[in-house]
Amino acid sequence: MRFPSVGTDPAHHKDCLATANWLVGQLQAMGFEAGLRQTTGQPLVLGRSAPPGGEKLPHVLFYGHYDVQPADPLELWTSPPFEPVIRKGSRGQDAIFARGSADDKGQLMTFLEASRCWLKVHGVLPFRLTVMIEGDEESDPAHIDTFLKRNAREFPVDAAFICDTGMWDAKTPGIDTRLRGCMGIEFTVIGPKIDLHSGLYGGPVQNPIKVVSRIVAAMHDKRGKITIPGFYDGVKPIPAKLRKQWAGLKFPAKKFLGDVGLGIPAGEQGFTALEQMWARPTAEVNGIYGGYRGVGSKTVLPSEATAKLTFRLVEGQDPKAIRRAFKAFVKALVPADCKVRFDDSGGDSSGIAVSEDTPWIRAARAALKAEFGRDAVLMGAGYSIPVVESFKKHLKVDSLLTGFGLADDNAHSPDEKYDVASFRRGTRSWARIFAQFAGK
Amino acid sequence: MRFPSVGTDPAHHKDCLATANWLVGQLQAMGFEAGLRQTTGQPLVLGRSAPPGGEKLPHVLFYGHYDVQPADPLELWTSPPFEPVIRKGSRGQDAIFARGSADDKGQLMTFLEASRCWLKVHGVLPFRLTVMIEGDEESDPAHIDTFLKRNAREFPVDAAFICDTGMWDAKTPGIDTRLRGCMGIEFTVIGPKIDLHSGLYGGPVQNPIKVVSRIVAAMHDKRGKITIPGFYDGVKPIPAKLRKQWAGLKFPAKKFLGDVGLGIPAGEQGFTALEQMWARPTAEVNGIYGGYRGVGSKTVLPSEATAKLTFRLVEGQDPKAIRRAFKAFVKALVPADCKVRFDDSGGDSSGIAVSEDTPWIRAARAALKAEFGRDAVLMGAGYSIPVVESFKKHLKVDSLLTGFGLADDNAHSPDEKYDVASFRRGTRSWARIFAQFAGK
Repeated sequence: MRFPSVGTDPAHHKDCLATANWLVGQLQAMGFEAGLRQTTGQPLVLGRSAPPGGEKLPHVLFYGHYDVQPADPLELWTSPPFEPVIRKGSRGQDAIFARGSADDKGQLMTFLEASRCWLKVHGVLPFRLTVMIEGDEESDPAHIDTFLKRNAREFPVDAAFICDTGMWDAKTPGIDTRLRGCMGIEFTVIGPKIDLHSGLYGGPVQNPIKVVSRIVAAMHDKRGKITIPGFYDGVKPIPAKLRKQWAGLKFPAKKFLGDVGLGIPAGEQGFTALEQMWARPTAEVNGIYGGYRGVGSKTVLPSEATAKLTFRLVEGQDPKAIRRAFKAFVKALVPADCKVRFDDSGGDSSGIAVSEDTPWIRAARAALKAEFGRDAVLMGAGYSIPVVESFKKHLKVDSLLTGFGLADDNAHSPDEKYDVASFRRGTRSWARIFAQFAGK
Repeated sequence: MRFPSVGTDPAHHKDCLATANWLVGQLQAMGFEAGLRQTTGQPLVLGRSAPPGGEKLPHVLFYGHYDVQPADPLELWTSPPFEPVIRKGSRGQDAIFARGSADDKGQLMTFLEASRCWLKVHGVLPFRLTVMIEGDEESDPAHIDTFLKRNAREFPVDAAFICDTGMWDAKTPGIDTRLRGCMGIEFTVIGPKIDLHSGLYGGPVQNPIKVVSRIVAAMHDKRGKITIPGFYDGVKPIPAKLRKQWAGLKFPAKKFLGDVGLGIPAGEQGFTALEQMWARPTAEVNGIYGGYRGVGSKTVLPSEATAKLTFRLVEGQDPKAIRRAFKAFVKALVPADCKVRFDDSGGDSSGIAVSEDTPWIRAARAALKAEFGRDAVLMGAGYSIPVVESFKKHLKVDSLLTGFGLADDNAHSPDEKYDVASFRRGTRSWARIFAQFAGK
């Protein structure tokens, strides 16, 4: 945590390299064959455990990242961001304060320390292990994706373990089994070839702002369902068991919304707020503009108007099919007298749902229950974690996402911290997962 | 036309004053009691004809403006803008080229020359006449409005004559009897108190862009009718005679739209494009914005979104009632969890329709028919002419709007011109209008 490994800032390239080399040293000290690999971004730390013997043992890829978010605004930190210190957190608990303590240095070290301990006690791990720690997670997921695509054959692994997520709460562990994908698109409706005087032309002339508004308004029905034909193709119902577990969490939707100035859950009817965010797709407008946007009034009838959208997608939805379906939906609503232009540069990623029934998830659930004394929540995340999709796409493996972060960790903010209990119980949890595979 | 009386440019204040003084001289030479009056803007030229005898004679206010639009870009002028010259226009006709030749110096001189001739032949005018020529028409209608409000009692007139509009075409005179008013309003819908991550929050959180789009989309039904309750209160049907005359004009709607890159008349069904622009109200969105508007994609769920609107109004509609009705319409569509903020600074003006049956219009129609050999078109204008409303409000009189400008006059553009025929036939037309009142 003393390395200011701010990946996005060229001034910290050297610090990133130093962090990566420090990690290589740690892995080598554990008997791993380890080194740096060049990528299109920061150097990648790769380490392979000494062959534990037995080709039949599963091969696990552990993933973390050593880059951190920039620390500014510095004046809001209680202690300097790159001088880690243990003091009390807001709940009276011991916590280590530093940039990167939670995201992701503290988290990734839970796995490495568990490995180190296991090796010390048992000599060999219960699986073949490749450790991959990247330096571009906070800045650009394309680097690791490109690396995996180019070098997929080097990684004939059976599963990926990722320690970069959070617990349900300080007492309840969590495993992320659902991540929403994202498809971004922008469309511009063009009416008259120039801006017109709305007094002179108002009436017989198409107004692109009205057209865009009508399209946006038509995307949802009164129950919050998305009306684009084919949008829900492939979407599976949320398993009854999962809905039951989530209902049992008694997610305080009103408080959650109250924290951002709202109070009444909106969105798709028939689903709880948690289900909406974790397991249902959305169509969101991220930006809209057209015509006059300065102070006061201007009687212009604009030539064009634009909306920027992202669709959060769940497992089973094909982003490319949805892009096509959305374009057809828009075109059907654009009057014959207007043109429409699309911008596809928003990119796309698929939604991911990991079966709750893989050996990896089963092992993790058993281990976390043993450590915490309560069932791990099978959580969803509303956003995508791009590397999960890269593993799926290039290495053809699912990821086990478990981590020990908490909502109050201030990841990406001043006074980032990681509870000492997260570190200790996280480390023990991984050791318990190892034990599941070792049959111990 | 040699005076560069650009009212909006302080460097031309002296030129404006010189123009005004020149006009005073012209009026005095015609035997008028004339002088300058201070306003909150440029000096106002006022002249009163020598009492023609007979208190029973009607009192006419003639209005024009001596200020002109700036002349730049100068390089696009064929001859210098303030060195008037007669040469051939694009139809082979003689035209005088200069800034202000059409708007409004040439036009106002048709009336003054008609008066001068009439006085020379008959000695007295067939009505009492006050001439009012302002210098702020192109920059700020508030100055003349303030002057009229403060000094209304000085002008106990029966009608206002305005020569600042156009003919239907080069062969067909026109009288403007309908001007649309305008009410401007802006509304902002506020959802979450800060911009949110659309992955994390997308689902249960209200998106203000969607709310604004829904409101904009709901303003019109499928037939282009405005759905705001009470919006059409007071709107009278277009008189059948007028519709018939307008239909006879065979307005080339497709060509009109084609010139701005469109081709299919939109708007309120059941009305022609000309009827829509001249005699029907509209609800137009002049601007919309919310969320991310930069290049590329940003997964933000924005805190607020705004739409700027203007409503074109026709006679009978009360702008203040429509402002209230629109606010109620918006509030009814804003979800309980969002707030809405209105900005009323857009101001308002009423739509105006002059009865086709006043003595002034009757006289003008007869005179114009005698001069041009065809009926004057009773035209509408989609935009407001603020001084008409000021006359109505402060002096309680209707205006007779007739002028001899043509669509190809390049008013406000380089190479502004006024056809010599417009000047000659305009002058003769006014003399014929005088004759109507004199019973000659």
